[in-house]
Amino acid sequence: MQKGVLYGVSVGTGDPELITVKGLRILQQTTVVAFPSGINNKLGIAQSIVNCWLKPEQILLPLDFPYLQDEQKLQNAWQKAAAQVWHYLKQGTDVSFACLGDVSFYSTFTYLAQTLQELDSDAKIETIPGVCSAMAIASALKIPLTVNRQKLIVLPAIYSVQELETALDLAEVVILLKVSSVYKEVWHILQSRNLLGSSAIVEKATFPDQKTYYNLNDYPELELSYFSILLINRQ
Amino acid sequence: MQKGVLYGVSVGTGDPELITVKGLRILQQTTVVAFPSGINNKLGIAQSIVNCWLKPEQILLPLDFPYLQDEQKLQNAWQKAAAQVWHYLKQGTDVSFACLGDVSFYSTFTYLAQTLQELDSDAKIETIPGVCSAMAIASALKIPLTVNRQKLIVLPAIYSVQELETALDLAEVVILLKVSSVYKEVWHILQSRNLLGSSAIVEKATFPDQKTYYNLNDYPELELSYFSILLINRQ
Repeated sequence: MQKGVLYGVSVGTGDPELITVKGLRILQQTTVVAFPSGINNKLGIAQSIVNCWLKPEQILLPLDFPYLQDEQKLQNAWQKAAAQVWHYLKQGTDVSFACLGDVSFYSTFTYLAQTLQELDSDAKIETIPGVCSAMAIASALKIPLTVNRQKLIVLPAIYSVQELETALDLAEVVILLKVSSVYKEVWHILQSRNLLGSSAIVEKATFPDQKTYYNLNDYPELELSYFSILLINRQ
Repeated sequence: MQKGVLYGVSVGTGDPELITVKGLRILQQTTVVAFPSGINNKLGIAQSIVNCWLKPEQILLPLDFPYLQDEQKLQNAWQKAAAQVWHYLKQGTDVSFACLGDVSFYSTFTYLAQTLQELDSDAKIETIPGVCSAMAIASALKIPLTVNRQKLIVLPAIYSVQELETALDLAEVVILLKVSSVYKEVWHILQSRNLLGSSAIVEKATFPDQKTYYNLNDYPELELSYFSILLINRQ
């Protein structure tokens, strides 16, 4: 019997209409739709984005990806999730996994796909690219992200002061993902380089409660949510 | 009278289904659809992507963006294009501009929008984010682009050997756009750093004639087309 396919579907950054036509077609044609489960009885974010597109007959498969540092517990969670997906695939049933943003860009899907491949090296996995947060914040700010010869650096959640300094030396455009926990430190570095005026933040890009902050000279202190991204454009 | 809106619509990287649902809705509801005109009587690339989505009653507006270095001639071309768009906007007619990839990511749209704003500082401009080439190549290669703490650097068409060396020192993942003209030089740098096995190329990502090249040890010489992107993942 032919096995099912696991599709990693990029659902975009928040606005349900930012899913691609291809992503929507595949999401709607699979029997099972998986997504990271929500916390404290709330809908998971990817689920809340695709909810309006799902059909009543589709099987929902919330998968538990805990926010932990403990490598062994994470491994256990991924193995359990991969087994839940594999349960359908081995019966020939296709599964979509709804990914916030783009499926290749710092996505949980990577761990699910890798763990599934350890379970079955022949597992069929396809990904559908989508709108990543870096593109979404540029549109939200109504500025180009990069033009012409500008180099772009993306620094994810955890980075050192030195890395940020080196990035600012090298590239005209620097993006800091998940900046909330290090904002104060970053603000002082930008101040020392006279870059606050060329820096902006987008919180919850493309969600209904999106917020934008231009010219960070005005914001030495900011209480930011987890989905906050800082963009520095030196030109 | 209310002026029309210029929408920068990201149409994705080649596969017509990689336009977002929002981009498609706006593309189809504007009276006028603009795009960079093709060369030598061929369809422009963005036009060829959206062709299947357009309706017979929509007005097509090809705009001439010549491939030139001459700053004055480029300025003239952008001014002419902005005037062509403004002709519709001032009558209250909305215009979509179809952009290959994402509208904020090294896009011609930036110049059109800036020139339009010089014509009319109150011009209404909106952008719809989309699938950029960096996300498309990762899906094409069936590998994650970035995970966890990996830093990402994108180097556009023109860069020095030193910039590439510095980028490789700083980031785990490096993308070289438009690599065709400098491939030989880049290959030798990657060889000297023992990175050829961790490097791959995608030509014409998501187009029907997409090609992928893994493990560049096997390809010291490659005749690549303009739309070729090289991905280096050090891990």
